[in-house]
Amino acid sequence: MKNKNVSSETITLGHGSGGELTRELLDNIILKTFSNPYLDQKHDGSIVKFEGEIAVSTDSFVITPIFFKGGNIGELAVHGTVNDVAMCGAIPKYLSLAFIIEEGLKISEFIKIVQSIKKVADESNVLIITGDTKVVERGKGDKIFINTTGFGEVHPKANISVQHINEGDKILVNGFIAQHGMAIMSEREGLEFESTIESDSTNLNFLVKDLLDEFGDQIKLFRDPTRGGLGTVLHEISNAISKGIFIKETFIPLEKQVAAACEMLGLDPLYVANEGVFLVIVDPSIATEVLTFMQNHIKGVNAAIIGEITNEHPNKVIMESLIGGKRIVNPLVGEQLPRIC
Amino acid sequence: MKNKNVSSETITLGHGSGGELTRELLDNIILKTFSNPYLDQKHDGSIVKFEGEIAVSTDSFVITPIFFKGGNIGELAVHGTVNDVAMCGAIPKYLSLAFIIEEGLKISEFIKIVQSIKKVADESNVLIITGDTKVVERGKGDKIFINTTGFGEVHPKANISVQHINEGDKILVNGFIAQHGMAIMSEREGLEFESTIESDSTNLNFLVKDLLDEFGDQIKLFRDPTRGGLGTVLHEISNAISKGIFIKETFIPLEKQVAAACEMLGLDPLYVANEGVFLVIVDPSIATEVLTFMQNHIKGVNAAIIGEITNEHPNKVIMESLIGGKRIVNPLVGEQLPRIC
Repeated sequence: MKNKNVSSETITLGHGSGGELTRELLDNIILKTFSNPYLDQKHDGSIVKFEGEIAVSTDSFVITPIFFKGGNIGELAVHGTVNDVAMCGAIPKYLSLAFIIEEGLKISEFIKIVQSIKKVADESNVLIITGDTKVVERGKGDKIFINTTGFGEVHPKANISVQHINEGDKILVNGFIAQHGMAIMSEREGLEFESTIESDSTNLNFLVKDLLDEFGDQIKLFRDPTRGGLGTVLHEISNAISKGIFIKETFIPLEKQVAAACEMLGLDPLYVANEGVFLVIVDPSIATEVLTFMQNHIKGVNAAIIGEITNEHPNKVIMESLIGGKRIVNPLVGEQLPRIC
Repeated sequence: MKNKNVSSETITLGHGSGGELTRELLDNIILKTFSNPYLDQKHDGSIVKFEGEIAVSTDSFVITPIFFKGGNIGELAVHGTVNDVAMCGAIPKYLSLAFIIEEGLKISEFIKIVQSIKKVADESNVLIITGDTKVVERGKGDKIFINTTGFGEVHPKANISVQHINEGDKILVNGFIAQHGMAIMSEREGLEFESTIESDSTNLNFLVKDLLDEFGDQIKLFRDPTRGGLGTVLHEISNAISKGIFIKETFIPLEKQVAAACEMLGLDPLYVANEGVFLVIVDPSIATEVLTFMQNHIKGVNAAIIGEITNEHPNKVIMESLIGGKRIVNPLVGEQLPRIC
């Protein structure tokens, strides 16, 4: 798109000065795109009304490349934080939005990112209510980093806590794992597959709300396995409850070509990042009902029960493999895929 | 200090993986330092209770150098956001805290920053309730960037709005301007003065609260002139109210050696950043009372009435100079001091 309202083709240090160029960027791109009564106050902060319990979550996004199959850093910055707020059993309502831009970023790329943020924020039913823009010199950043902090109202029926988890509780996931990490990895490595692997970056707040409307305090935990992947998150839960987790590899939703890509690159899909996947832990008595409910929802079509809580091997996650062997799923050590979100 | 609980001397990409090294950094440094019931939930978000109106503000801090006379990037990240929330007429209560660290940052430096954050958060009476840590490769960041997003309860007596500003209203500042910018500039240029110029980085929330307790809705506006300095902020206010602002140079609190340093470097103190300064706009009938009140407060000892609102020259800020001439104060164009906050 033409950026006729901004007087240069690229972001300069002046755009971070707090002076006229900052004002131009704000007025002609950011405020124009996100215009709403909160942001239009043009103060350094915004005032919103709330009653009761609020869930708050923050994330900085440093993904590279900033544009990838299935999304871009802007979409990710909205989905990531919307989902983290939702995982608290809350309905996300507002986001703050802070950019750290490297001098030289094309204004056209910046506009594309800002417009993506607007689009997915609208889809997710959240408003951008306050923000910040900083610029760093060439070589002191990497195109653009984005922080979003989100807050939402805790669902009146929610009673999410690891403390409610008991032996026998079932663990469900809403869909295919490892899509996001492998999309990024393929992009970086220039790999070609029969069909494109796309990031699963999406909002999960509507499915979470519908689950809470339907099952309320029978839902014991939501958790989204982003960085570190499913394996790391299961390990964290296992440690938090001092119980074991048993999963079956055959139950874990994994697309064939994602599995093939992992194999080719020597990566374990259990540790590959997701951006549209979440875990639900529920009492075994309602597990199949929750499963069916999820499978009938657009964000849970490929949902599955992947395993359960056990007292057999406290603090350990054990997976039965496709061929029937058992192995301990250790937490990820070191870095598998840097800057995946 | 010894960092015996972390298994390396510097931050590595693994510390941003979401896996074991991230966990180590979190458990042994971050959670250990900030431990509180919210953060100890160890979820991706926190749940807090609120009633009524909430002020929200976000800022990313990219200052260089990260340690400077009178503070460091961690202190600044707390003060900056605490003050932005306070400027909304609110009492800051909670902060989120997100790090983007460049691979290679010394763990000892990171610990120093984290401890500074803890110290000034305690002093400012705010809790760190949720956070995030990302790591980028060497040369893709610059030591450390910090985002804080702050939440506070709007003071029950506050009724802050540019719309309440009338002709004749008086403009006060709480103290010396241009200290922060010149401290950073001296540090970068290796300048030596008779005595050290220190950043004015400090929290302003207690003085703001006391002013609201005492004068309530008679306070029409608070605003802190950080990036862009006093001149840019006055210009913004003038535009927002479509009225003129008249100030006298002789009334503006400016330390002699800061003035000298500005002169030496060819900088106009009106555009130099502050981190402990704020403007108050009030009805002329209470201006001297507010002034005395501020001067009796530890954060307002050097307060002064610097000018007033006028209908004479709408959308223009005019300053009478020391020698009696008048000049238009234009907004800052371009970048005066990059990465000042």
